[in-house]
Amino acid sequence: MTATPGSASAAQDDRVNSQVCVIIPAAGSGTRLGESIPKAFVDLHGRTILERCVDQVLDLDAHVVVVVPADLVGRARLLLPPHVEVVAGGAHRSTSVRAGLAAAGDAGIILVHDAARPLTPAGVFRRVIDAIRAGHRAVIPGIPVADTLKQIEQLDTDLARVTTTVDRDLLRAIQTPQGFTREALVAAHADDEGLATDDAGLAERIGIPVHVVEGHPMAMKITTPWDLRVIRQILDSGEVVT
Amino acid sequence: MTATPGSASAAQDDRVNSQVCVIIPAAGSGTRLGESIPKAFVDLHGRTILERCVDQVLDLDAHVVVVVPADLVGRARLLLPPHVEVVAGGAHRSTSVRAGLAAAGDAGIILVHDAARPLTPAGVFRRVIDAIRAGHRAVIPGIPVADTLKQIEQLDTDLARVTTTVDRDLLRAIQTPQGFTREALVAAHADDEGLATDDAGLAERIGIPVHVVEGHPMAMKITTPWDLRVIRQILDSGEVVT
Repeated sequence: MTATPGSASAAQDDRVNSQVCVIIPAAGSGTRLGESIPKAFVDLHGRTILERCVDQVLDLDAHVVVVVPADLVGRARLLLPPHVEVVAGGAHRSTSVRAGLAAAGDAGIILVHDAARPLTPAGVFRRVIDAIRAGHRAVIPGIPVADTLKQIEQLDTDLARVTTTVDRDLLRAIQTPQGFTREALVAAHADDEGLATDDAGLAERIGIPVHVVEGHPMAMKITTPWDLRVIRQILDSGEVVT
Repeated sequence: MTATPGSASAAQDDRVNSQVCVIIPAAGSGTRLGESIPKAFVDLHGRTILERCVDQVLDLDAHVVVVVPADLVGRARLLLPPHVEVVAGGAHRSTSVRAGLAAAGDAGIILVHDAARPLTPAGVFRRVIDAIRAGHRAVIPGIPVADTLKQIEQLDTDLARVTTTVDRDLLRAIQTPQGFTREALVAAHADDEGLATDDAGLAERIGIPVHVVEGHPMAMKITTPWDLRVIRQILDSGEVVT
């Protein structure tokens, strides 16, 4: 074997700055929740989804950058602790991730985290960060799929037909934070037109290996009114995992 | 087109007896719940999972057959209304389904329902029954998959690598009740060695078309302590859908 021409720069990439920045794009609409305000500003027993989300990362020794619609920057600054950075995002999620990246300073490890997963335990963040520090370029949390899944073809509005049953043992339901070395995240978003909702998917597409660590049920995403109800009931019970 | 030799018997099959029997196999262990008693006998705020499950089907005008371990037949009879039939099941789920089928009288439409889905709205049962009455031989409820799913290969205990992202639009998370014409269910179980956990999967395997109607988030299955917590919190809120 001979050394490849790229080996020197690959060695350089290995020495990633191990400072961590957590980017929280929080510009999602509340439409599917039946709310008129952006999802991150919906109330969960006296605190917004965004505040609860930020609460979970405050012990991480990470720079936190929250990306909100331009007209909500002032409001987010009033809600959040002063050392959390608030920047204006764009119309698409990917634009918001890039706005967050521009504010990430020189952190070498970047985590992108859905604001809509406000109860994600800090342990999930730590597993992602540890795996990046161990040398992986893209690391995401996932949990086993409990449901039986079948592939279908839709016949009409109310009826579909099963085409095949899927082997769920080989599947993981993906959560956030999704973690990347800075160079991997920059490369992943370089060609994106702003429509991606899955940063790891962008990395996959350009051939960056994506690794999976254990997620947590409490990292569930709030998408529907049902999810919001489940999260409120967990908060009622006081059984939040930190 | 010429008439196929099977057309006369197919016409016969169309005239299915439209009486409904709901079989509830309730012999699952409580191990994954961290409970020492079978799952169906775990308490949910003063009523067992099994009682709550049966409550949901009492308005359906269906014969209800509950299948429990032999040593719990007496206890189940004490818990359930007198017109609910209780029979002893076998070591495997499929054996229990067959025991239920033997007690199903001459009902032409058989629904098999997990006891571990105690809050399944009656509307889900009705959609399944209606689709069987409309001429389908195997009908199951399913809901869209909200999570991003990735296929993985496991590298070691704590780490996996993504092999591909799955197109979730074509997937449904399958729930119960799973409904069948009697002949379809009998045929599906004829060759099974008792290990199947998915009756519709057995039907698929022998070429019976399986149709999918809309399920409901409230039909969630209790598998882990987390699920039990979510269900208890829904009961606390009084927001059960009937």
